Amino acid sequence: MDERIEALRRRIDELNLDLLRLLSERAAVAEAIGRRQTEVGLSHYDPMREQAMLDALVSANRGPFSDATVKSLFKQVFQASMQLEQEQDKVQYLTSRRHRSEDTVVWVGDVAVGGDHPAVLIAGPCAIESREQVMATAAHVARRGVKLFRGGAFKPRTDPYSFQGLGVEGLELGREACDAHGLRFVAEIMDATDLPAFERHVDMLQIGARNMQNFHLLKAVGRSRLPVLLKRGLAATIEEWVMAAEYLLHEGNPNVVLCERGIRTYERFTRNTLDVSAVALAKLETHLPVLVDVTHSGGRRDLLVPLTKAALAAGADGIMVEVHPNPAVALSDQKQQVDFDGFDAYLDATLFPRTLTAGRTELYRG
Amino acid sequence: MDERIEALRRRIDELNLDLLRLLSERAAVAEAIGRRQTEVGLSHYDPMREQAMLDALVSANRGPFSDATVKSLFKQVFQASMQLEQEQDKVQYLTSRRHRSEDTVVWVGDVAVGGDHPAVLIAGPCAIESREQVMATAAHVARRGVKLFRGGAFKPRTDPYSFQGLGVEGLELGREACDAHGLRFVAEIMDATDLPAFERHVDMLQIGARNMQNFHLLKAVGRSRLPVLLKRGLAATIEEWVMAAEYLLHEGNPNVVLCERGIRTYERFTRNTLDVSAVALAKLETHLPVLVDVTHSGGRRDLLVPLTKAALAAGADGIMVEVHPNPAVALSDQKQQVDFDGFDAYLDATLFPRTLTAGRTELYRG
Amino acid sequence: MDERIEALRRRIDELNLDLLRLLSERAAVAEAIGRRQTEVGLSHYDPMREQAMLDALVSANRGPFSDATVKSLFKQVFQASMQLEQEQDKVQYLTSRRHRSEDTVVWVGDVAVGGDHPAVLIAGPCAIESREQVMATAAHVARRGVKLFRGGAFKPRTDPYSFQGLGVEGLELGREACDAHGLRFVAEIMDATDLPAFERHVDMLQIGARNMQNFHLLKAVGRSRLPVLLKRGLAATIEEWVMAAEYLLHEGNPNVVLCERGIRTYERFTRNTLDVSAVALAKLETHLPVLVDVTHSGGRRDLLVPLTKAALAAGADGIMVEVHPNPAVALSDQKQQVDFDGFDAYLDATLFPRTLTAGRTELYRG
Amino acid sequence: MDERIEALRRRIDELNLDLLRLLSERAAVAEAIGRRQTEVGLSHYDPMREQAMLDALVSANRGPFSDATVKSLFKQVFQASMQLEQEQDKVQYLTSRRHRSEDTVVWVGDVAVGGDHPAVLIAGPCAIESREQVMATAAHVARRGVKLFRGGAFKPRTDPYSFQGLGVEGLELGREACDAHGLRFVAEIMDATDLPAFERHVDMLQIGARNMQNFHLLKAVGRSRLPVLLKRGLAATIEEWVMAAEYLLHEGNPNVVLCERGIRTYERFTRNTLDVSAVALAKLETHLPVLVDVTHSGGRRDLLVPLTKAALAAGADGIMVEVHPNPAVALSDQKQQVDFDGFDAYLDATLFPRTLTAGRTELYRG
Repeated sequence: MDERIEALRRRIDELNLDLLRLLSERAAVAEAIGRRQTEVGLSHYDPMREQAMLDALVSANRGPFSDATVKSLFKQVFQASMQLEQEQDKVQYLTSRRHRSEDTVVWVGDVAVGGDHPAVLIAGPCAIESREQVMATAAHVARRGVKLFRGGAFKPRTDPYSFQGLGVEGLELGREACDAHGLRFVAEIMDATDLPAFERHVDMLQIGARNMQNFHLLKAVGRSRLPVLLKRGLAATIEEWVMAAEYLLHEGNPNVVLCERGIRTYERFTRNTLDVSAVALAKLETHLPVLVDVTHSGGRRDLLVPLTKAALAAGADGIMVEVHPNPAVALSDQKQQVDFDGFDAYLDATLFPRTLTAGRTELYRG
Repeated sequence: MDERIEALRRRIDELNLDLLRLLSERAAVAEAIGRRQTEVGLSHYDPMREQAMLDALVSANRGPFSDATVKSLFKQVFQASMQLEQEQDKVQYLTSRRHRSEDTVVWVGDVAVGGDHPAVLIAGPCAIESREQVMATAAHVARRGVKLFRGGAFKPRTDPYSFQGLGVEGLELGREACDAHGLRFVAEIMDATDLPAFERHVDMLQIGARNMQNFHLLKAVGRSRLPVLLKRGLAATIEEWVMAAEYLLHEGNPNVVLCERGIRTYERFTRNTLDVSAVALAKLETHLPVLVDVTHSGGRRDLLVPLTKAALAAGADGIMVEVHPNPAVALSDQKQQVDFDGFDAYLDATLFPRTLTAGRTELYRG
Repeated sequence: MDERIEALRRRIDELNLDLLRLLSERAAVAEAIGRRQTEVGLSHYDPMREQAMLDALVSANRGPFSDATVKSLFKQVFQASMQLEQEQDKVQYLTSRRHRSEDTVVWVGDVAVGGDHPAVLIAGPCAIESREQVMATAAHVARRGVKLFRGGAFKPRTDPYSFQGLGVEGLELGREACDAHGLRFVAEIMDATDLPAFERHVDMLQIGARNMQNFHLLKAVGRSRLPVLLKRGLAATIEEWVMAAEYLLHEGNPNVVLCERGIRTYERFTRNTLDVSAVALAKLETHLPVLVDVTHSGGRRDLLVPLTKAALAAGADGIMVEVHPNPAVALSDQKQQVDFDGFDAYLDATLFPRTLTAGRTELYRG
Repeated sequence: MDERIEALRRRIDELNLDLLRLLSERAAVAEAIGRRQTEVGLSHYDPMREQAMLDALVSANRGPFSDATVKSLFKQVFQASMQLEQEQDKVQYLTSRRHRSEDTVVWVGDVAVGGDHPAVLIAGPCAIESREQVMATAAHVARRGVKLFRGGAFKPRTDPYSFQGLGVEGLELGREACDAHGLRFVAEIMDATDLPAFERHVDMLQIGARNMQNFHLLKAVGRSRLPVLLKRGLAATIEEWVMAAEYLLHEGNPNVVLCERGIRTYERFTRNTLDVSAVALAKLETHLPVLVDVTHSGGRRDLLVPLTKAALAAGADGIMVEVHPNPAVALSDQKQQVDFDGFDAYLDATLFPRTLTAGRTELYRG
């Protein structure tokens, strides 16, 4: 190695340590400011102050860094200090595993979702269409060991002329069917004004993909005591999905289960693309249970078994699947619901309800 | 050409004409059924009947087509007949240019949007933050000839700890600023329960990208008489966007303006990808005015001018752009709002408000 | 049910059967034409003829179907007939499970990939950088039971100023390391002119994501006898991926292994999005073995274990993973390669090389 | 404002200036090292040295920043210094406007592309199919004022059984047609070994979307003297596209024209999504001419006019469009090529060849 370079590098090493000393002192002063701001009730983030500091630095800059580089470096320093203040203030995200390291277990009635409990299966028709249909389906899935029943009464439909669900009558039919067969009832809520009816009839509220960022609905459901199944939006990032859950926890409802349901991509062989990385990252970054809706993920019956196996292997705490007595005449999702024989074959192939969960939780817990 | 093939081809030609004759007769009978169903109040679509017909055909099939092919061909025939019945019943989409060939002009107060009217510009801050901020911005844009003012009072925010808007107070401040400067006020509504407050204070309701498929909100706003600016969802298809507008028209509100705002793609140099094809297709397929939000489309100030020019060239009826007295300290969208000097430069470069619109409408009208 | 409708439906039933009779006769005649065309060496697809038939039908059309509908219906009929002729001619895709129902087993030396054989693991550095680095890595992975070694000598790099690989010297170093430790050598080929050097030094050719549709390279590699690992393109559809494999088989190389490596989406927490549906569909639609590159799929070390489990659960026949003695100073992929300790932990967590494969193949075989 | 906070903020202001002083000195020393490294022929980037510095800093760190934060802040500092050294070394990207501020004008024979020259139109069939077809098309477009003729002789096709082009015979037919009608000939090259034939017959090489990252081809074409039309990859980022151009310039070929052709998204009403932001950013970030292929961007004839207008408004230096005597019987791209009448209507609607370019270049030049 060149001697001249060696000498210059020794000087760099000294400068590095001097910089570290100043940065640490600066951080300590910033922490003191943060504590004081909390005392007197001031916001920690003050963009005018940041702007003033940057202006002072730029006017003092004589190079060799450009003004833009100076600004960029100091913004990093500001941000690092701000993070320190936030940690100190415990303004941590409630959904984060850093906030709570153990897995949250959500109870839907007497059924546990998450933690070391066996993977759950939520099964039932896309939409509740009639008393016969919902009764027959509930009877069949209950006979096969299912504990959680799904069925839509209010349906979000792209086309205003499509079947929109039976509304409150659908909730009543679902409740009746669940009571008759010892099932817990999961149904999608589309608007906060329907909350009293849902609280009367259902055991778990579902927030659908299209409403994942309906913040008014999130706030209302966050004030309910019912457990919530929060689907990921059609093209939501993982961060947006977790932030939607944060709204629910922030409003006071800790009983939140995340549900991956495939994301929108360019691929045309499947309706959506199941994102197993999102399952893994949701388990890593949050303490909430994570389910996978395998019906909407692929939009194809021939993918239900492999997608279920992949989801469970990635650490999912359960699966949602659509079952209908006669999918060919269903009022929605004709192509992707399975009939009773198909459902039985699905259970056999996936080993539900005896699914092994060993190795699931240790993947993600610290 | 081979003689044997020639002879076989002549036989094909005869069979084609026989098939056409039978298909036409079948279509006429199906039309008669449709008329009768309308008379006696029955639904035209009867999936059980379709299933029965397919079963009969499959059991009669002796090849050489496979049963799957027979089913697929007849499903095409059924669908074509169903379309005939629907046309006959005039169940056309209200948004469609086939339903209404002339351009719809939406009036926001005395400002016309669409048709042969000059392109409009909606300008104002992302969020209304204070009396000073909103007054200064309204004064500036009004002085530059802008007629439509935007400003958010209820803000959809990914993070629950971000600034959520001033709420009703923000609406009041926006109204006051608009009245002081002769502007029309456009603001985003996030929940149907806020509609009375919006009807008191604003001239045009905006439905944001995250709420494009909040069907409860769409139905409520569809029953209002205020004009509506309907943004395209983050990753909505053009069809879903138009169907969301159909909800509004179906509920009785014809004053709908579509607004493209960029779609979510893998590209990382821009926040979203402006989809000018969507502008062109929305103009081709519907009779509604189409605007482009150039601020959110690119998420970069240096793209505002070229994206505005491209949008207008593709046939957009107007542009939305965010202006803030001091973007660096804005409570949202710091990186993409322009300040007053930037706004003046933008107007000079894009020739607003003297923008030429010649050639715009003839592109899309029959 | 209404009597008038009943009567009309009976007429529809008769017409359906008449149509089926004519369609079947037409199909038989088309088959005869196809046989004759094959005899005299004519192409089956004749767009001029199709155009002439459509013109004749349109000029004979008296409604009620529109001309467009008539054309559309008959195009379906033409297409169905064409498919019949193709099946008859056995112009089936060589990659298709309809062409060959049993799983193809690809041998890389004495290592079997696919079928009922245990899942394989391909491990090694992103790029071969030096003799020390490749020797150390080969020694480590061989000690842990790995049989297949990867290492890039020609590197496709977005930036022309990035490290481009050691070229032929890299191939020689990789060969030497593999020979020293009883490993089979897999390396990426970027251009057909390098094929002789690869045939001298490697046991399996890799075609990278960026070259998936480099058809000249596909054709050249298709004429080689070496087995091929064909990565899916960055944003290739499943169909395009399978068609790229078809090029290889069509040129005479049956030893093709598909490799999913994540697709490009809007998500920013991961480098790419692992598409497990593609693994399942590739197994369903083709008879080829399918591997998953878990390093590039997520681009994150903390996802290697869950993505591996998910891939194997979806039916993958093996995994590829990048290992480097000191990833922090690697010349490429610093953030995603694991070091030796990380590799050992990975093997422990995923149970390689004792991975269970039970249940894998029966998922997809007829 | 609180007094205690004021006092602490004054201390922060001092520390900021001390930090700036140290950072500037450190940068000057790093520059000196960089100069010396250049003198003695050493690489500037030394990851082992970086690792050692980070280790020293972490072992000296006593808080309050976490070790991770210290590492992250210093990596920013290292990176900023590295950029300084690179600027000093003039290792700037050749494609960058920072390297060359004036627009590059590429001459294809006597036709200028880029700068202040009028927008160009490249027209011709997707594939050269026969002497009649290419002659008729060349005659028609030349009569309408077109100077640049496109026609594929080697066709990249997803399916190996699709028409693959006439090869060298196609190049000869294209050359003959161009010579007969005073046109310049643009054709796609798929492999470096074909370069001699292309250099004999064509005036401009096209690199197709599927070969945008075929680096071997890029290097070979970069050593040619023929001008190059470089299409953006199917799902390439803007950065990857510009880096592909950098390969060409780095090898010595400065005559590069970029060509946007739509990107792959979830939208299904269009074949691809035209990205006008990419046109604008390519003009902002590079000095190269940028064209738009409006045929592939939308994949629909009814979008050719609005997409052309939008592309030119965004600053494109020209347009590529596919024309065929009878698109219904074309051997490729049947649905998107225009016939001669359609082409005439397209020229009338878009005002080619009298298109105004005023305002184009000043958008992007400093």
